[in-house]
Amino acid sequence: MKKLINQPENVVREALGGMAAAHSDLIRVCYEPNYIIRADAPVTGKVAVISGGGSGHEPLHSGFVGMGMLDAACPGPVFTSPTPDQIFGATKAADGGMGVLYIVKNYTGDVLNFEIAAQLAQSAGIEVSSVIIHDDVAMQDSLRTAGRRGIGATIFAEKICGAAAEQGYSLAQITALCHQVNANARSIGVALTSCTVPMAGKPTFSLGADEMEFGIGIHGEPGRKRMKLESADDLTAMMAAAVLEDLPFGRGDEVIVIVNGMGGTPLIELYIIYNKLDKICREKGIHIAHQLVGNYMTALDMSGVSLTMLKIDETLLSMWDAPVKTAVLRWGV
Amino acid sequence: MKKLINQPENVVREALGGMAAAHSDLIRVCYEPNYIIRADAPVTGKVAVISGGGSGHEPLHSGFVGMGMLDAACPGPVFTSPTPDQIFGATKAADGGMGVLYIVKNYTGDVLNFEIAAQLAQSAGIEVSSVIIHDDVAMQDSLRTAGRRGIGATIFAEKICGAAAEQGYSLAQITALCHQVNANARSIGVALTSCTVPMAGKPTFSLGADEMEFGIGIHGEPGRKRMKLESADDLTAMMAAAVLEDLPFGRGDEVIVIVNGMGGTPLIELYIIYNKLDKICREKGIHIAHQLVGNYMTALDMSGVSLTMLKIDETLLSMWDAPVKTAVLRWGV
Repeated sequence: MKKLINQPENVVREALGGMAAAHSDLIRVCYEPNYIIRADAPVTGKVAVISGGGSGHEPLHSGFVGMGMLDAACPGPVFTSPTPDQIFGATKAADGGMGVLYIVKNYTGDVLNFEIAAQLAQSAGIEVSSVIIHDDVAMQDSLRTAGRRGIGATIFAEKICGAAAEQGYSLAQITALCHQVNANARSIGVALTSCTVPMAGKPTFSLGADEMEFGIGIHGEPGRKRMKLESADDLTAMMAAAVLEDLPFGRGDEVIVIVNGMGGTPLIELYIIYNKLDKICREKGIHIAHQLVGNYMTALDMSGVSLTMLKIDETLLSMWDAPVKTAVLRWGV
Repeated sequence: MKKLINQPENVVREALGGMAAAHSDLIRVCYEPNYIIRADAPVTGKVAVISGGGSGHEPLHSGFVGMGMLDAACPGPVFTSPTPDQIFGATKAADGGMGVLYIVKNYTGDVLNFEIAAQLAQSAGIEVSSVIIHDDVAMQDSLRTAGRRGIGATIFAEKICGAAAEQGYSLAQITALCHQVNANARSIGVALTSCTVPMAGKPTFSLGADEMEFGIGIHGEPGRKRMKLESADDLTAMMAAAVLEDLPFGRGDEVIVIVNGMGGTPLIELYIIYNKLDKICREKGIHIAHQLVGNYMTALDMSGVSLTMLKIDETLLSMWDAPVKTAVLRWGV
């Protein structure tokens, strides 16, 4: 295992220390329980938006904490759910009196622990609403999930719900927006190599020199099928078909897309994917209103790519365009 | 070779196509000769700032084209210098009548070709000034360089000179600022793995399972020494010492730093490096005014990290803070 780390058990804590030092204008980091929270939290009179999950997917979620996006993020150990007390701690610290939205990626541990945290919060008089994100079209159930896994749509949900919260939307309204995002987003991922979890010290799985895993999970869980590595254009066509046919997206739709690197893939390759995706969407009469191309939701050092598409309306578009100031997304300010 | 590409010879062209499609609000891409240029170029009455070099270092330079940074970028083939006619083409297209600054990383081919382009431009009546960036403390001469190699300081030069150009500084003033940046910046890089150039199809070099190359070049050129992989903290201390002692940086200095991933290193590891760097700087009484932590100047899929530090004064700080709107850096707008 070749990693720029110290002791494997200190990876998350030390990375949080780095985040806190680098972004003290945006965030504060609390330890035991671990969470990252807006520097100006709690923002009174505003719904708080909280997400979290296992570490190893950076910049998700910690890089999205700040004005116009998340109020707090709860990072578990690498690829491991955050605990209920961690989520409850973040909830108490972020609550501005208007209730709290939990955005939860659909993994069994995450769903369970956010549910317990919601009960703790409600017992403490904090109103909580939860939305489970399940946008991965790769498969119905998986090793870690009942139903579809939650991946890239989480980024859309965090941005759009964060913007709505900033604009004074109620918890019920923001919850409805989050359901709208989840219902209109679809994703698929592909791995060219495994990732290596620091505590494991060796690759999670192995792929032949000419193989890829289509429909990979963000923890290296198996996908739809293992197959020969395709050209970028053919692979993009496969990914686009999987995503577009599932919703389905169709002529005249307006979308926001994320061409996301899994951590070990060079940016130049992601733009080659985007080049083909743009052509496919033009042919199909689908208009890409905005896009992100880069590493936004990773699986440590995995080489690969995922595609997420969100069908938007005027409200979702305006929420995406709204000002945001986080470590990763920053515009309008 | 596992890459998300089509034909190796089309990598740069297709990636440029993806950039053009993704960022049409910011940039235009011209082909044969290839360059990326601000969508609103030429901006009349403003000095134009141009850089370029081999591809494979994305987002450098193309991701930094836009308001407040580069007017144009000239991408050569992977790890290969752009041609004089390419640079001359970008120069004619970007020239707003106030002259053009070339920011050139110190590699023999780049220096030569920018020099020829400058002669072509001057023959065409366009005033050109060139500054060679050579901030890499790893070694004096190298396989591709007479004198020190140019690496991360290029990003500082592009941002700071771009801001000055936006504010109406003259070519002479901006040239002086660029020299100031180069004189006050130092860098060092480390590789844990080689990169693989698409046209070569195999890794450029090999490292043992427990080895790293300290002082690596951004094309995989040899560094200062090959050694056992250190812990993140010890490695950060080594890198900081190499950089800090060279200028030297000292107590009371204010700096901007880049903890830069080489393409295949997860963000969580870069924050562990930053965590230690922040402690070292505090101990030494060096104040980090701003920082970038992420992939800004890569070597394809290389796993590794580089550190760049710039000693700033009020002018450099205000130019760094000034509004910028590019694919990668965006603030104040």
